Order: sequence, then C-alpha cells, then structure tokens
Amino acid sequence: MSDTMISREIRLAARPNGMPTASDFELASVELPAPGDGELLVQNTWMSVDPYMRARMMDRKSYLPPFQIGKALEGHAVGKVLSSNHPDFTKNDLVLSMNGWREAFISDGTGLQKLETYGLPEQAFLGVAGMPGLTAYAGLLRVGQPKEGETVFVSGGAGAVGSIVCQIAKIKGCRVVASAGSDDKCAWLKSLGVDEVINYKNHADQSALMAALKAAAPEGVDVYFENVGGDHLVAALEAMNLFGRIVVCGLISGYNDAAPKPGPWNLFNVIGKRLRMEGLLVSDHQDMLGDFVGDLAAWVPAGKIKWQETVEDGIENAPTAFLKLFSGGNTGKMLVKLG
Amino acid sequence: MSDTMISREIRLAARPNGMPTASDFELASVELPAPGDGELLVQNTWMSVDPYMRARMMDRKSYLPPFQIGKALEGHAVGKVLSSNHPDFTKNDLVLSMNGWREAFISDGTGLQKLETYGLPEQAFLGVAGMPGLTAYAGLLRVGQPKEGETVFVSGGAGAVGSIVCQIAKIKGCRVVASAGSDDKCAWLKSLGVDEVINYKNHADQSALMAALKAAAPEGVDVYFENVGGDHLVAALEAMNLFGRIVVCGLISGYNDAAPKPGPWNLFNVIGKRLRMEGLLVSDHQDMLGDFVGDLAAWVPAGKIKWQETVEDGIENAPTAFLKLFSGGNTGKMLVKLG
Repeated sequence: MSDTMISREIRLAARPNGMPTASDFELASVELPAPGDGELLVQNTWMSVDPYMRARMMDRKSYLPPFQIGKALEGHAVGKVLSSNHPDFTKNDLVLSMNGWREAFISDGTGLQKLETYGLPEQAFLGVAGMPGLTAYAGLLRVGQPKEGETVFVSGGAGAVGSIVCQIAKIKGCRVVASAGSDDKCAWLKSLGVDEVINYKNHADQSALMAALKAAAPEGVDVYFENVGGDHLVAALEAMNLFGRIVVCGLISGYNDAAPKPGPWNLFNVIGKRLRMEGLLVSDHQDMLGDFVGDLAAWVPAGKIKWQETVEDGIENAPTAFLKLFSGGNTGKMLVKLG
Repeated sequence: MSDTMISREIRLAARPNGMPTASDFELASVELPAPGDGELLVQNTWMSVDPYMRARMMDRKSYLPPFQIGKALEGHAVGKVLSSNHPDFTKNDLVLSMNGWREAFISDGTGLQKLETYGLPEQAFLGVAGMPGLTAYAGLLRVGQPKEGETVFVSGGAGAVGSIVCQIAKIKGCRVVASAGSDDKCAWLKSLGVDEVINYKNHADQSALMAALKAAAPEGVDVYFENVGGDHLVAALEAMNLFGRIVVCGLISGYNDAAPKPGPWNLFNVIGKRLRMEGLLVSDHQDMLGDFVGDLAAWVPAGKIKWQETVEDGIENAPTAFLKLFSGGNTGKMLVKLG
C-alpha cells in the first residue's frame, strides 16, 4: 500500500428544490494521507441511503445540521480498517461510522464503532440490525404499544423500516395491514405473513385509498406506523379506532415538495377518537439496543424476521440509489456497495 | 301548580351547512304532564352552550350520537326540582343534567346528578366547576404534563376552557402565553397573570401569527393547549420545543367549514421535534374529578382561579348564545339563563 490513497466521494453541489437531480450532486476525488499517530484508515464496503437525508439537504435547522454545499454528504457506512495507528483498532476490523458517501476516510476514532457481525452479513448493520431495524423496533413497541389482537397499519410497508415493523407486529400477535407501491412488493409482504396488503398505486385518489384501507381493516386500525404522509395519513385518520396511536416515523411523500403540501383535512379525528400522534427518532431510543439485539438474535434464526436489499454498485451510483427511495425503486433496504 | 306545565325548547330544524343560522333552530313548546310514580319535574335555571355541540349537528358518527332533526337539542343544564315522586330527589333540590336547551323536563332520575354548590353560584357547575373546568384540569395536567418553568401556549385563552388552563398553568409555575380575539379579552387574561397575550385578530395572516408567537415565546413552547386549529396550529408547530406536547381539545376555527380546510403544512415538525399530539375528551378523565374539586376548593378562595360569564337571557336566545361561541362573542363561559 502506498502512503497516500485516492478516495472518491459524493458532495452536495446545490440544495435541491423539489426532487433532487443529478446536478445537485458532484463526484469528487480526494487524496488521503497515510494515517498519523492515533489515526486509522477505513475503506468503506457498504453505505446507506435513507429518506431522512433529504431533510439535511435543506438549509433548515433540524435535529441534524444541514449538509454543506461543496462538502461530502454523510450517513451510515460499514468499512474495513486498512491500516491503523490507533490503539483500539487493527487492520481488517469492521467498523460502523457516519462517514458514508465516500470510499475511504482517515479517522481519529471519534464516532467509529467496531462491528461484531454475529454471523450476519456486514451490510445488515445498515438495515435490519442497524438504524432502520431499531427504528422499527422502538417505534412500534415503545411508541405504538400494540396489544395482541390489535390491527397495525404500516405505510411504506416494503421499505427498510416498514418491512421490519410488519414482521415485529406479527410476532407480537397483531393483525397487520401494509401498503406498498407495486404488486411485487405486496407479494413479498404477503410472503412475510402480512395479513392484508394495499398496492396504493391502484388507489390513486384519496377516497379510493380510504376505501381500500377500510376494506383491509374492517375492525379499524389501532396502531398506524406512518412512513408516508399525504393521502395515507388522511386514510389512517379515518380508519383509526378509539385511543389509536400514530407513530410518525416518516412523511416521505412530502420530502421533495418544493412548497409544502397542506396537511390532512381530518385532524379532528384526533379529538373524537382521542388519538395519540407521536414523532419518532431512533436516536431517542438507543437504550433499547440491548433488547433489540437480543430479540433479533432469536427472531432471525427462527425465520421470523427476513429482509431484502436493493443494491447499487459504486460510489458514483450513490445519488441514483438515493433517488430510488423516492420513486419506489427499492424493496427493503437501499444500499450502495463500495470497494 | 297545575297538573301540566308548558316548556319551551330549542329543536334542530335543519343540519347546518357551514355556519349555523337562525333557521337551523326552531323554538317549540311542549306540554309536560305531572310527574308519575318515580318521576320528577325539573325547571332548568341555566343551560350551557359549548363548541362541541356543533359536531353533533352533523350526521356523522362520533363520540356522541348526532342530534336528531325535529328533536330538542341536548347539553348540560342546571335546574331546580319543582316536584318529585322520586325517592332520591325532593322539591328545590338543584340538579345537573344533560337536558339543556329546554325550560323544564320530566325525568325518572337517569343521568341526573344532585348538585351541592359549596358556596359557588349554581351556574359555575356549567363552567369552572363543571365540564369545561375538568377539561382544562385533566387536559393540561394529565395530557399536557407541564413542568415548572416550561412555557404553555393556550389558544382561545379567554374561553371557558382556555381561561382555566391559563390559570392552572400559572399555579403550576409555568410561563403562559395565550391568544384571544379582542383587546378586552387580552387585558382580562393579563389581569389573570398570563405572561404574554396575542390578539390574533391583529395578526391575521399565518406568518404574522407565527412571528407573534415566536416573539411571545422566545424560548419556544413546551405545551400547546389547542382550542382553535388552523393558523394557530401551524404557528404552534413551528414554535414547539423538542418533546413538546400538543393537547388537542378543540379545533373551533374549522367547526363551521362547509368543506373541511386542509391541515397544517408543517406536520413534519412532529418528527424532528418528537412532538406528542393527543386528543382530549373530558369523559375519559372523570377519575380526576375528586382531585379537581379538591384543588378548586383551595384555589378559588385563594383568588388563584377566577372566571367570567357571558349570559344570554331566555331559551329563545339559546341559538344566539351558541352562535356567539364562533364569532368570539363570549368571554369566559357562555351561558343561557332560564326561568
């Protein structure tokens, strides 16, 4: 290995207005020096693209700082230590970091987490065994609090989070209704044990979606796991049962609106049905990580939790992977394979 | 007293489309027989009009059945027993009932509650010491869970519920910001100890209201007690702090929309700020009645809870009283004095 290394990375070229386009991203190369004292060099093997990243592309104060124009984007990645002068890391260690969207990086170890895979593929720690999995686990169980026999509705059911929510809800003895945007996705969800599926593209207007949900959940919805927003939220508000819970995890249908769309016209259901709507960020629920990993270790070998990946190859295709999140181009976890 | 008695009552003549008008109501007279065995005759002295009644005028399944066309409306009332053949009631007893919107009625005692006034005016049991008071108490304390030093924002602050919320929040050591629709109402709220008041009529567009709220609550809002909806909810969603709570008690700005208006465009704040929005109906919180009465018995003599009434005279003016709820014609509790 030479003393320096070239790493390609994706930078934010411009803040997207509405749906991002290729010109909002820029592929650049940086030369990494050899790691200094207390530093290590990591080559990323997989990186994650997630819907929440869209919000960081706006210049708006939120729970994470905005991405900076001209700088590499950030996100979860799994990588391998190529060389290390850091006492806690050795060559070939696997590490989880927030230094995605680049092929390699130098680190002083801050924010890096050594990865023990317990026999799972390393990229599972960007999905089922990582942030999306814990989001599903904490959001459904702690925020949604489903009881056995209740009906759980999951929008975006074939996504990285939604597909895990569906399966945990089944494990907990719930009736599960899920929506997704293609017949293939719906068929996959059925194969996972989801009781009723709705291909929302076949119910394009609001009243059709409302009717489809009422037909799929004739006894009403007790927990709505919200990934989508828009018409889905309107339909759910109509279908909710008394004391229903709405776990607001994502509102992806609106993330690329150049001007924000109006909210649901039927929020009055929150009063009459005494609904609880609560926002979910996984970072608040790190204390559940132990329980989550323990449960997963039982559920995965028992075949109770399955997952899919949709993979793009190469850092140059990371923007394409990201955009697929908004066009329904992914089933399960959207990943980019690097190196 | 003769064997029969004439009682005038207000019936629903037609289901209002949008803002109710006089022609949606009908004044009628019924002849009440003398009470039979196990019955009593009650003359109402005060009746309540409340915003929630608007929803019962629609033919829509909700937490209470719709009012029936051609039948007398219903609502809380205080009355005096004129004669009784019922073992539990004697002449001159005061009773609380749901048999408002009429001057008198015969009852077998079902749903009647004997009223002990503890020195309060009897009509207070339609307001501060009744359903609106318990709504404020349970909604703020159980659903809103304010902590000392937090900021509470109350829309419709000069209403029957809002004005009690403001004062309980002050008792609990919160900073209180309230909105109301006139300078007089705002002045009254200031006299009650409210820290900052917003006359929302001076901030007619959404961005002006948002700016006014941000100025009044520079450290953000921790608990929003929602009586109004519309622009108020948009402004509150922007001003909420992390882990804020929105107690959804009423959405009066939309109750008379012939077609429902869109909801807030900024619901995404629920995720980023991990807000909890929860619907409130007082009927779920009857278990707090003992605590509420006990606290009130201390707070009222200490001058910590004050109230106002706006009174219309005579059953024929009950529709006028009801309509004043939607035009800002009431300060504090809107009542109709009967008999």
